[in-house]
Amino acid sequence: MRGLVYHGPARTSWDTVPDPVLEADTDAIVRVDATTVCGSDLHIRQGDLAEVKPGTVLGHEAVGEVVEAGSKVHSRRPGQQVIVSAVSACGHCPSCRDTLYGQCRGGGGWILGNTVHGTQAEFVRVPFADHSTHRRPLDLPLDEAVLLAELLPTAYEVGVRNGHVGPGDTVVVVGAGPVGLAAVLVARLYSPRRIVAVDLSRPRLAAAARLGADAAELPGRMVAELSEGPGADVVIEAAGTPDGFVLATRVVRAGGHIANIGMPGRPATLHLEALWRKNVTISTGQVDTSSTPWLRDLLLFKRLAAAPLVTHRFCLERMEDAYEVFAHGPDTGALKVVLHRETPEPPR
Amino acid sequence: MRGLVYHGPARTSWDTVPDPVLEADTDAIVRVDATTVCGSDLHIRQGDLAEVKPGTVLGHEAVGEVVEAGSKVHSRRPGQQVIVSAVSACGHCPSCRDTLYGQCRGGGGWILGNTVHGTQAEFVRVPFADHSTHRRPLDLPLDEAVLLAELLPTAYEVGVRNGHVGPGDTVVVVGAGPVGLAAVLVARLYSPRRIVAVDLSRPRLAAAARLGADAAELPGRMVAELSEGPGADVVIEAAGTPDGFVLATRVVRAGGHIANIGMPGRPATLHLEALWRKNVTISTGQVDTSSTPWLRDLLLFKRLAAAPLVTHRFCLERMEDAYEVFAHGPDTGALKVVLHRETPEPPR
Amino acid sequence: MRGLVYHGPARTSWDTVPDPVLEADTDAIVRVDATTVCGSDLHIRQGDLAEVKPGTVLGHEAVGEVVEAGSKVHSRRPGQQVIVSAVSACGHCPSCRDTLYGQCRGGGGWILGNTVHGTQAEFVRVPFADHSTHRRPLDLPLDEAVLLAELLPTAYEVGVRNGHVGPGDTVVVVGAGPVGLAAVLVARLYSPRRIVAVDLSRPRLAAAARLGADAAELPGRMVAELSEGPGADVVIEAAGTPDGFVLATRVVRAGGHIANIGMPGRPATLHLEALWRKNVTISTGQVDTSSTPWLRDLLLFKRLAAAPLVTHRFCLERMEDAYEVFAHGPDTGALKVVLHRETPEPPR
Amino acid sequence: MRGLVYHGPARTSWDTVPDPVLEADTDAIVRVDATTVCGSDLHIRQGDLAEVKPGTVLGHEAVGEVVEAGSKVHSRRPGQQVIVSAVSACGHCPSCRDTLYGQCRGGGGWILGNTVHGTQAEFVRVPFADHSTHRRPLDLPLDEAVLLAELLPTAYEVGVRNGHVGPGDTVVVVGAGPVGLAAVLVARLYSPRRIVAVDLSRPRLAAAARLGADAAELPGRMVAELSEGPGADVVIEAAGTPDGFVLATRVVRAGGHIANIGMPGRPATLHLEALWRKNVTISTGQVDTSSTPWLRDLLLFKRLAAAPLVTHRFCLERMEDAYEVFAHGPDTGALKVVLHRETPEPPR
Repeated sequence: MRGLVYHGPARTSWDTVPDPVLEADTDAIVRVDATTVCGSDLHIRQGDLAEVKPGTVLGHEAVGEVVEAGSKVHSRRPGQQVIVSAVSACGHCPSCRDTLYGQCRGGGGWILGNTVHGTQAEFVRVPFADHSTHRRPLDLPLDEAVLLAELLPTAYEVGVRNGHVGPGDTVVVVGAGPVGLAAVLVARLYSPRRIVAVDLSRPRLAAAARLGADAAELPGRMVAELSEGPGADVVIEAAGTPDGFVLATRVVRAGGHIANIGMPGRPATLHLEALWRKNVTISTGQVDTSSTPWLRDLLLFKRLAAAPLVTHRFCLERMEDAYEVFAHGPDTGALKVVLHRETPEPPR
Repeated sequence: MRGLVYHGPARTSWDTVPDPVLEADTDAIVRVDATTVCGSDLHIRQGDLAEVKPGTVLGHEAVGEVVEAGSKVHSRRPGQQVIVSAVSACGHCPSCRDTLYGQCRGGGGWILGNTVHGTQAEFVRVPFADHSTHRRPLDLPLDEAVLLAELLPTAYEVGVRNGHVGPGDTVVVVGAGPVGLAAVLVARLYSPRRIVAVDLSRPRLAAAARLGADAAELPGRMVAELSEGPGADVVIEAAGTPDGFVLATRVVRAGGHIANIGMPGRPATLHLEALWRKNVTISTGQVDTSSTPWLRDLLLFKRLAAAPLVTHRFCLERMEDAYEVFAHGPDTGALKVVLHRETPEPPR
Repeated sequence: MRGLVYHGPARTSWDTVPDPVLEADTDAIVRVDATTVCGSDLHIRQGDLAEVKPGTVLGHEAVGEVVEAGSKVHSRRPGQQVIVSAVSACGHCPSCRDTLYGQCRGGGGWILGNTVHGTQAEFVRVPFADHSTHRRPLDLPLDEAVLLAELLPTAYEVGVRNGHVGPGDTVVVVGAGPVGLAAVLVARLYSPRRIVAVDLSRPRLAAAARLGADAAELPGRMVAELSEGPGADVVIEAAGTPDGFVLATRVVRAGGHIANIGMPGRPATLHLEALWRKNVTISTGQVDTSSTPWLRDLLLFKRLAAAPLVTHRFCLERMEDAYEVFAHGPDTGALKVVLHRETPEPPR
Repeated sequence: MRGLVYHGPARTSWDTVPDPVLEADTDAIVRVDATTVCGSDLHIRQGDLAEVKPGTVLGHEAVGEVVEAGSKVHSRRPGQQVIVSAVSACGHCPSCRDTLYGQCRGGGGWILGNTVHGTQAEFVRVPFADHSTHRRPLDLPLDEAVLLAELLPTAYEVGVRNGHVGPGDTVVVVGAGPVGLAAVLVARLYSPRRIVAVDLSRPRLAAAARLGADAAELPGRMVAELSEGPGADVVIEAAGTPDGFVLATRVVRAGGHIANIGMPGRPATLHLEALWRKNVTISTGQVDTSSTPWLRDLLLFKRLAAAPLVTHRFCLERMEDAYEVFAHGPDTGALKVVLHRETPEPPR
C-alpha cells in the first residue's frame, strides 16, 4: 500500500510500504476512507519527538471501514464504518477502567503514528480495536467524522471541560488554529458571555470571526484591558508556546482557569510570585477521547456545527501537498485539511 | 499601646503606638489575647512586600475580646471572644457573596498587617468586623483558636481541598514547616494511603514524623521512586520555592493535582514539554477563610488535633524573641509560636 | 398606602394599610415600581399555608427605589433602584455564609408576604436590606428585573442546576406554567439536545412551543416512549402535583436527575421498588437567590431572553384583576403578570 | 457439581446440577473458593423477584480460581484468583464506557443468580469475564475479598459517595444489617463528626456499636432530636422499608442527602409538602462495582478493616444452614456468612 513515511527530521515521503497485518488478536485492520493532519504531525515531521523512529507511517486520525478483525475483537466486524481514535485503549488497565484512555498502561495511549504505524496511509492496523474505535453513523459525513478522532475531543476535554466554561463567562482562546477554533465552537455550547480569540495571524483571526468568536484580535488592547480589569473566567491556551502561556496567566481573572491544550515543546515561566494571590487553576492534558460518543451525538443532532473547520480536501496521495497547506495555515487561514480515499465531493 | 512596627527592610521594633480607633462604622476594636507569627511576616520583615509601608503594625492572626464595635456592626458586641481572620471581608461585593473573601473587592482581602495595622499589638482595629471575625467558643483554647485565623484554613482550602485529597491517595507534602504540617493533619481526615513529607531540614522532618506523616525524608530516594513510578496523587507544595515547585511536578502522577500553598517570591519553571501528556492540575491560592467555622467545629469535636503545631509560647512583649525562634524553625524544629496577652499557661 | 391584604382563605382585598416603617436598623423601605404574582400566592390566597396570618400584605417579588435605609444598612442608599429578592438573608448566619439564603437561620428566608408584609403594595419594608436586595441597572427593564426576584433564580437553582442539565441532554419539563417555562429558557443555555414540555393545558403547551420547547405535548405518546425507551436525562418537575412527580419518575432514565420545583401541597408516591435499580437522583428545593447577580448579567448581555415570559401588564391598583388573569393561565396561556406603579408602557 | 437451586417461592435446595460450560467466548468458568449470602438472596428465596425462574442457581458474590476462559477473554487466565463481581459488564456499551456497569446495555448488569446461574455452587460461569472479575491478591484473605464482590462497593457507591459524606458530618445509618454496617465502616474514612446507627434489633445495635458507630439506638430519642434540631447531614437508608425511608426524610437536615441502599419491595411516601423547603437530595442506586479496585487497595493498605463484618463461616455444602443463620441476623446479630470450598480456617 501507500503511506506517508517519516525518514528523519524534515524528511517524509509518500512511499510504498507493506500492507498492515494483524499482530495481536485484539487488532483490526481498517481501510482509511478519510484522514487528516494534526499540529503534532508537523512537530513530528520536524523531528521534535524523539520517540518517533524513522520508517514510521505517520498520522493518528482516521475514518474508514473495518476489513479484518482479530479473533478477540468482540464488537467490531469487517464492513463496519468506524472512527479510529487517536488514542488506543486496552480497555482493561486501571486507567482505562477510569476512562483515562490517554494514560492507558496496557500498551495503548497515543501510539498511532508515534510508536506504531499510523493512519496517513491506505490501511492502518488499529490495536485494541474494541476500545479504540467508535461506530460512524452513515449520515455523519466523513469530513465531520474525522474531526472526532482527535480534534473535537481535545477541544472539549482538554479545553472546555478542564477550563470549566459556563454560561456568562468571558473565555479567551489563545491561538486560533484548528484546535483553538474547535474550542471556540465547543465552548459556545455553554453560552459564555463572549469568546475572545487572540492570535498573531490575521488570516486566523479572520477565521475565528467567521467561526463565531465575539472578538478576534492581535495581542494588544484587549489583552491589556483584561489584564488590568477583572480578567477572563477561562483561558484556553491553544498556541502551545511559552509566550502564549504567560499571556494566559496575565489575562485570567482571580479564581479563573487556564486550560492548556496542545503540545508545547519548551518550558514556560510560571509567575508564582504574582499568581499565588490569584487562586488560579492550571490544567495540562492529553486527550482521552472519552467524550467522542457524546460529541458524535451533538454533531448528529446538529447541536454542534463543526464542518466549517475543514477548509481543504485532497485525495490521499496528495498527502504532502496537504501538509504544506496545513503548515501554512497561519498565513493562509487554512484550518483542517481532510484527505479522502475517493475523490472528495464538494462540501455540503 | 505597644505593637510590632515595621521600619523598613530588616527593621522592626516593639514600639509604643497610638491605640487604634474606629475609622469606619463597620469596624471593631479587638483586644489581642493571642497572636502568632506567619511565614509571610518573615517575608515582610525582610522587605519583600513593597505594599507594606514603614510604620505599619504587623501581624494578621489573632484571638481576643471585642472592646468596641462601630454603629453598623451587626453581629458582634463588646465582651465577645472572637477569632480575627487573616482575611477581612466586606461581605457585600460579588467575591464575598461567593464566599471568596480573599478576593474581596469592597476594601477587604488580606489587609491586616499589610496595608493597615495588624494584630501583633495589644489592640487591633478589625475592618468589616461582622464578616472578618468568628465567635470563639470558650472551651477552645487560645492556642488552637489562633490557628483558625489563617493556618488551618490555608492548609485545608489551598492545600487539601484544592489538591482533592481522598481516601487511599498518596499525598506528598513538600516543605514541612507549619503550613505543610497543618496540611498533613488536615489531609489525614480523608484517610489517604500515606503522606510523605519532604524537607531539607532534619528537625522539620522529625516534627513531620511526630505529627503523623507516614514518611518524612530529604529529597532523594522517595522522590526518585515516585518520579519513576506511578507518582503521587496529590502534591501539596508548601515550601514556596521554585525548586519545591519543580520537585512537585516531577513526583505527581499523571492525572494528579499540585496544590501550591504559600507565598513564592520568584517565578518557577513550568515544564510544559513534559507535563502536557500528564494531565495534571495545578492550583495557586490565597486563603478565603471560608472554612473557618467548619474547622472550628472539627477542633471542638476532637476530630482534628492541632495543638501539637504550637511549639512555643511567649508573652506579647517578647514579640521579637518569638520572631527569632520562628525564623529558626528549620534549624530547631520550632513550628508555630503563640504570643499571649497574659502569661501563657503550660499547654494541656 | 394601598396593598393586597389576606383576610383568610379565599379572601383578599386591595386595602388601605399603614405605610411600612423601619423596624430594625438593617431594614430598608422600598417604593414598589413593579411587582408580580407567584403560584405560591395563589396557594396562600386559598389558605393552604397556615403560617400566613390574616392581615398580611401578600407578595414577595418587587423592583423599586430605596426610599429609606436603617442605620446599619451598609450598601444601599435612598434613591437606588433595587431588585427585592423573594428570600431575605441576614448575611451572618452559617447558612448565609454558605450562600444558602433560603435556609437563613438569622430571621430571614422566605418571609416576605408570608410571615411579614410583602411586596404587593405601594411600599415594602425589606428586612436585612444589604443582603436581600440587588442593584437594578437602569437599562434592565422593570418587566425583566422583576423576574429576578424569584422566578429566574428558582428555574435555574432548583431546576436546571439541581437537575444537572448539560449539552446533548434530553430534558423533560413537567408543567408549562411560568416557572416551568423559565426553566425551558435557562436550560437552553446548556445546549440540551431537546426540551420536551408536558402539560395538561393546551394554551400552556402553545406557550411552551412559542418559548422554545422542542416538543410540547399532553402526557401520552412521548411520555410512553420515554418511559419505555432510554428515558430523559433530566426531568424538571414544575407542576407541583403528586401525578406530575410520578410521571417524572417514569420518564427519567437510569442514572438521571429529577429536580422538583415549586410547592407541592401533598405527598407523592415514591416507587422505590422500581427506582432502586435506576440510580436516580431526586432533589427538592426552595430558591436561595444566590444566582441572581449572574442571571442579571445574562439578561444584560442578552444571553437570556426572558421578556416573553411576561404576558400581561397592570397598574398596581388592579392587583385583584392580575390575580384572576394569572390564576386562569392554564386556560388562557397567561404567564407572568407584572404590576407597575406607573402606567406600564407597551413592551419592547 | 452441587449448587443452591431456587424451586419457587420459599423452596431452595442444595442439588446436583450440571457443571457450567462456556456459552460465549467472553465467558470464564470460576471454581468458587468462597461465596456469601446477600439480603437480596432472601428476597429471591421468598419469591419476591419475578425475574428469577425456578431452576436457577442463586448467589452473585464469589472469590475463586479461573479454571477455563473463552477464546475472547483477554486479561484472565486459568489459575488466576479472582473476585467475581455481582455486576457483569460487557465493557463496550455506552453505560460500561461510562463505568456504569450496573446499567450495562450489552447483556450484563446484575444477572448472576438472577437471570443466569449464580455463585452459590462449586463452579460458576462468569459472563464477560474481562470486565466482570478483579484480580485477588493472595495476601487478601478470602473472607475480605468476597466482601468486594458486592457489599463494600454498595456501601461506598450507593451509600457514602451518593450521600456525599464529609469530615465533620453527622451521618445517620438507618438499618444496621451488613450493608448498613459496611456503610459505617466506609463512612469513617471521611472523618464524620459522628455516625448514628438506628435499627429495631438490639443485637444489630450491639453489632453497630462494636463496629464503630458513635451511637446505636432504637428509633426514639435521637431521631426526635435530629428531627427537631438541625438534623443529619447525610442519611444512609439501608433498611429498605417504607418506614425507614420516611424516618430518613424526617432526620435529614435542610440541604442534606438521603442515600438509599438496598432493595425496597414497596413504594414509600415522599412528603414533598414538607420536603420542598428543605432542599434535600435523594438518591437511589444499584451498585456499579466501579470502586472495587480502590476498595481492594484500601483493604490491602489496612485503611479499611472489614473483617469484623464476617461473623460466621461454613463449608459450601452447608449453604442452607448459612441462609438460616443469615436470615436470623436481626435476632442474633449475625452479619455476613461466608461459605468456603475448603474447611474454613479460624479467622485471623
